Amino acid sequence: MLNFTYYNPTKIVFGKGTIPEIRGLIPAKARVMLTYGGGSIRHNGVHEQIRHALEGHRVVEFCGIEPNPRYETCLKAVAQVKAEGVDFLLAAGGGSVIDGTRFIAAAAKYAGPEPWDLLGNASLIRDALPLGTVLTLPGTGSEMNGGAVISRASTTEKLFFLSEHTYPRFSILDPETTFTLPDRQFANGTVDAYVQVLEQYLTYDVDAPLQDRFSEGILLTLIAEAPKVKADPRNYNARSNIMWCATNGLNGWIACGQPQDWASHMIGHELTALYGVDHGQSLAIVMPGVMHHQRDRKRKKLLQYAERVWGLTGGDEESRIDQAIAKTEEFFRSLGIGTRLADYRIPAESAPLVASRLADRKMLLGEHQDIGRKEVEQILLLRA
Amino acid sequence: MLNFTYYNPTKIVFGKGTIPEIRGLIPAKARVMLTYGGGSIRHNGVHEQIRHALEGHRVVEFCGIEPNPRYETCLKAVAQVKAEGVDFLLAAGGGSVIDGTRFIAAAAKYAGPEPWDLLGNASLIRDALPLGTVLTLPGTGSEMNGGAVISRASTTEKLFFLSEHTYPRFSILDPETTFTLPDRQFANGTVDAYVQVLEQYLTYDVDAPLQDRFSEGILLTLIAEAPKVKADPRNYNARSNIMWCATNGLNGWIACGQPQDWASHMIGHELTALYGVDHGQSLAIVMPGVMHHQRDRKRKKLLQYAERVWGLTGGDEESRIDQAIAKTEEFFRSLGIGTRLADYRIPAESAPLVASRLADRKMLLGEHQDIGRKEVEQILLLRA
Repeated sequence: MLNFTYYNPTKIVFGKGTIPEIRGLIPAKARVMLTYGGGSIRHNGVHEQIRHALEGHRVVEFCGIEPNPRYETCLKAVAQVKAEGVDFLLAAGGGSVIDGTRFIAAAAKYAGPEPWDLLGNASLIRDALPLGTVLTLPGTGSEMNGGAVISRASTTEKLFFLSEHTYPRFSILDPETTFTLPDRQFANGTVDAYVQVLEQYLTYDVDAPLQDRFSEGILLTLIAEAPKVKADPRNYNARSNIMWCATNGLNGWIACGQPQDWASHMIGHELTALYGVDHGQSLAIVMPGVMHHQRDRKRKKLLQYAERVWGLTGGDEESRIDQAIAKTEEFFRSLGIGTRLADYRIPAESAPLVASRLADRKMLLGEHQDIGRKEVEQILLLRA
Repeated sequence: MLNFTYYNPTKIVFGKGTIPEIRGLIPAKARVMLTYGGGSIRHNGVHEQIRHALEGHRVVEFCGIEPNPRYETCLKAVAQVKAEGVDFLLAAGGGSVIDGTRFIAAAAKYAGPEPWDLLGNASLIRDALPLGTVLTLPGTGSEMNGGAVISRASTTEKLFFLSEHTYPRFSILDPETTFTLPDRQFANGTVDAYVQVLEQYLTYDVDAPLQDRFSEGILLTLIAEAPKVKADPRNYNARSNIMWCATNGLNGWIACGQPQDWASHMIGHELTALYGVDHGQSLAIVMPGVMHHQRDRKRKKLLQYAERVWGLTGGDEESRIDQAIAKTEEFFRSLGIGTRLADYRIPAESAPLVASRLADRKMLLGEHQDIGRKEVEQILLLRA
């Protein structure tokens, strides 16, 4: 395996009825800002549980962090943080709310003139406000990492940072908070978790068998548990297992000592920025294209994936790879997520446009950093 | 799965050539005590690498932490820590050196009259000196947890604590430091890692499929990689994979939301305290007995273990379980570790003796806390 450094100080508190524990996890004298999205936490009881747990704490609220959280929205929160002397952030929601709050935490401590500069330049982050999370939408793994993906409306850009200073102090994972998730959010989150694992697994072999087994374990569990949630949204065990899979998908653990790809995410971010497609949807479109296009470079791992995750052992190599890609798409479609550009009425002209936007930022993608303008265009044309 | 809390702030720095990184991980002004065992680090180059990395730091040394580290030895180190104003501990070795150093870290900050009281009563630990480790003997997982097992010669007791205050700040895992390990230490460490995973996996089913997959992944990897090390002790990849398996075996991750057993460890500790058998050896003796004796209560997991780890799918349930236990013993024996009391000339009278010692401490063992005096005796008699 490759040399690596792993560090993850987030405390995870998992299980039903755990929201009251935030009381002991946030300093009694803290001035807390509770951040959330469109208000679903007001309908599912999470808001009430949090406010009850924080009785006696000083709490202000910031509502309205949108999916694909916007820079412009986060700056409003930063201004409120400074105006009200907030010194602890508590994010309640999914990856968008948590990512947005993480950006707020870093931006509030940044002395430079333009916090946008932190995206793509995490070394500028020297400090951040402490934050905790109450996760209500599993998928991104944001509850146990230090990364944030932020969008900027004025430039249709979507960029990210990853910093040791912005891990949550704690994250509360109560699977019951996900019982009332809309199907689309559940599907998007599940696809996101699945593709994140593939980004860290489907590369080239560096003789890291334990990490491979862990990745395969997450994929197998997502495939087994997602239909149970579809059949019964209040299945606590299945909800728990999906939630824990998603955390494991991007807390750094399966990535230890492994090469990483992330081409599908980078291409998908452009589709989201340009066409407003959901993050999970964008991944379901792009990942099968990357698998097809990179089949020779990823051959050994694709065959391992075909065998261990989908039980495909018959036929020649090409046919096993084709079947594994088809099974992957089938899984996404079974969740109600389209896997073609046409499913979202995105035109084939998106291919050269996305390719040139990435090329303009001098981005070479994939585990070999050799997927450039031409290859991105080819990958997207495979998805028309 | 069960509710759980997970917290593990240890930074892992993994790979060849990483020892020099301790320079940036220990504060420049710290007064460091380097702790180690019998001096093997003076022969394999680790001592020299550490001293070189710490040039400019103030460093004192404490040598002689023995296998199954003794309370009496640790107290000498605590006295030296206080006399010399040490404020950072650096342990270089395996689980015994790390556990001993962890106890020193807690005892040095303990105001009570008798630091032995911390064993079995971790709530007394409110603070500890910071510590880092350079791991040279994989097996115990001590490099990424907060537990310590300490022996007391005067009472032939072996007890433990587990505390959030005693996680290493960092651990350096350079697989090259293990190239020259004696066979017996390699075998003991590998058995320890294997049995630790079984203690957290072979219980009852709580519908935690991801954690099951992780545990099975560690077991499968240990089984696949150990023979490669036996064939070529300088096989870097195999050494790396064994090392990473061992860390994963007891850093708390596979235990999340799972019931835990630990009966084999508790019984094994008594064998070590009474007869001086190595820790790994004691586990290889006891675990097959626990598997046989508890086969009805552990049935579902034993059958899953038989199928997924050993590929046993034919025959009736009893025969699959018998075969799985036999395969487990065979694996231990392939490493050169005896699995019977007689292999170490331990008499059958050990059975009632160990049983009464545990009963005297009012210890009920196993995931159901129902293995008492009678059952412990029966388990050990199965191993005569």
